Amino acid sequence: MSSFEKYLKVKKDFIDRNLKRYFSKRGNYSEKLYEAMYYSISAGGKRLRPIIFLSVTEELAERSMIKKLLPAALSIEMIHTYSLIHDDLPSMDNDDLRRGKLTLHKKYDETVAILAGDALFSYAVEVFLQTGVDERYLVQGLRYLIKAAGMDGMVVGQFVDTKSQLFKQDEKTLKFIHTKKTAELIKVSFALPAILLGCDKKKIKEIEKLGLHSGLLFQIVDDILDYTTPSQILGKTAGKDEKQNKLTYVSFYGLEKAKKFAKEESKKALKLTKKIGFKKGNVESIIELFLTRIN
Amino acid sequence: MSSFEKYLKVKKDFIDRNLKRYFSKRGNYSEKLYEAMYYSISAGGKRLRPIIFLSVTEELAERSMIKKLLPAALSIEMIHTYSLIHDDLPSMDNDDLRRGKLTLHKKYDETVAILAGDALFSYAVEVFLQTGVDERYLVQGLRYLIKAAGMDGMVVGQFVDTKSQLFKQDEKTLKFIHTKKTAELIKVSFALPAILLGCDKKKIKEIEKLGLHSGLLFQIVDDILDYTTPSQILGKTAGKDEKQNKLTYVSFYGLEKAKKFAKEESKKALKLTKKIGFKKGNVESIIELFLTRIN
Repeated sequence: MSSFEKYLKVKKDFIDRNLKRYFSKRGNYSEKLYEAMYYSISAGGKRLRPIIFLSVTEELAERSMIKKLLPAALSIEMIHTYSLIHDDLPSMDNDDLRRGKLTLHKKYDETVAILAGDALFSYAVEVFLQTGVDERYLVQGLRYLIKAAGMDGMVVGQFVDTKSQLFKQDEKTLKFIHTKKTAELIKVSFALPAILLGCDKKKIKEIEKLGLHSGLLFQIVDDILDYTTPSQILGKTAGKDEKQNKLTYVSFYGLEKAKKFAKEESKKALKLTKKIGFKKGNVESIIELFLTRIN
Repeated sequence: MSSFEKYLKVKKDFIDRNLKRYFSKRGNYSEKLYEAMYYSISAGGKRLRPIIFLSVTEELAERSMIKKLLPAALSIEMIHTYSLIHDDLPSMDNDDLRRGKLTLHKKYDETVAILAGDALFSYAVEVFLQTGVDERYLVQGLRYLIKAAGMDGMVVGQFVDTKSQLFKQDEKTLKFIHTKKTAELIKVSFALPAILLGCDKKKIKEIEKLGLHSGLLFQIVDDILDYTTPSQILGKTAGKDEKQNKLTYVSFYGLEKAKKFAKEESKKALKLTKKIGFKKGNVESIIELFLTRIN
């Protein structure tokens, strides 16, 4: 195991452990709802978003700040999970498998999946508000997070992706979907620590740019993996995008050109880590992982 | 038109006008999503929650504060509407009519309804954060609002109501559902202005109690109306609770006892308005309206 692989494992375990704390058993009436939420939260996610958040935090602040900013990192993972639960629903992407396990509406039913998603989103805000920074930065940070998660961010991305018949299937739409549906929340994972720590605007903008390139890189590789990897390894139904005639980098540009785009985005991101002055190497390793990951 | 009816109309128009401002046309990709959200937001709601919020604000602060607190009032209405959209879905209460118009998934489809609900919830948080008070109170107020809207509030209420087979159909469960599903957000409409204005804890607690009694009153009368009023006047499918074997005050206690409970809650609420020292009469008139409304 390389030292970076070890780093990822330590961070993932740390996040898993802390997420679990937030879903310890509750009162009689809400127990089953928490159980459903935790089923999805604990269903084998790689925790890339909170790991990004923590590795950027380590570049910008003292070690002691990790604990204070942790609720914000966990809330991003909760928002990500809520979006997966709703995206998997029959009236959306209609997926039975996610991360190698049954999706929530398959494990329970649609009622539970819709409400667990709603609950997870509101809980994400509750948990975010436990972040240990000055209220001024807390409000600024929440504005930033919610904008990326809402109807000018993640939700409109999913909307345009699912209701494809309403939109011209061109390059602009492809870029819009990928940016909104995936890249923006990854951007937030990079830039939110800088906002919560009160960094200057210029630095926030640069980290934001780094986040957007990394997010696009992530989604392009996702498109490539959906096309090239068997379901068993992918942990979700592979080739689904193709079957559903989804607009992806592979369907629009072909496999080779998609790979080229991914490489370009990774180069831009890596260049920015140098410009920003990140020194520990973990952020760079995450970007390299985004390019080379197999599932 | 009585002066209170005039008061309600002026307030409702003010809220409608300001809600409209928040849903003015957007970019190409999000236009249809905004359109769907606004369809539900503008579908004839009585705006009781923001009217409560504004009438309590008028009791506690200078007139100039109305404008500053308005985004919080609107965000409560958005959260209320988001919950109606999701509650009406086929896998939930499966309702075709709401406020005399087609429900959102009937007007569009389930995909649009789920996403418009999600978008409305995140937008509610965005709009709430525009409230013009000190960040300390803003954070405190949002914690309060989100707790009532989330999985220890409104969502768990809907969960227990919809998944009734999982829970003992007794008095405790009936009270739990009504408190969580309806009363808590009405409680917030009463108490949130006090929190945002930095009132002392004792006053907040009293207003909260007033809100809970009013909220229970509202839901008991809702049960009675569902049982006694034809769909055409009710603006939604009447007798639905009965058909779905829902636990209501009427199904559990019978009509006469339910009416008695409603009267008791209204008395408790009215007594509290005196204790708190509300002077303008509008809060009292709202409570009386809750008891006497026909739809």
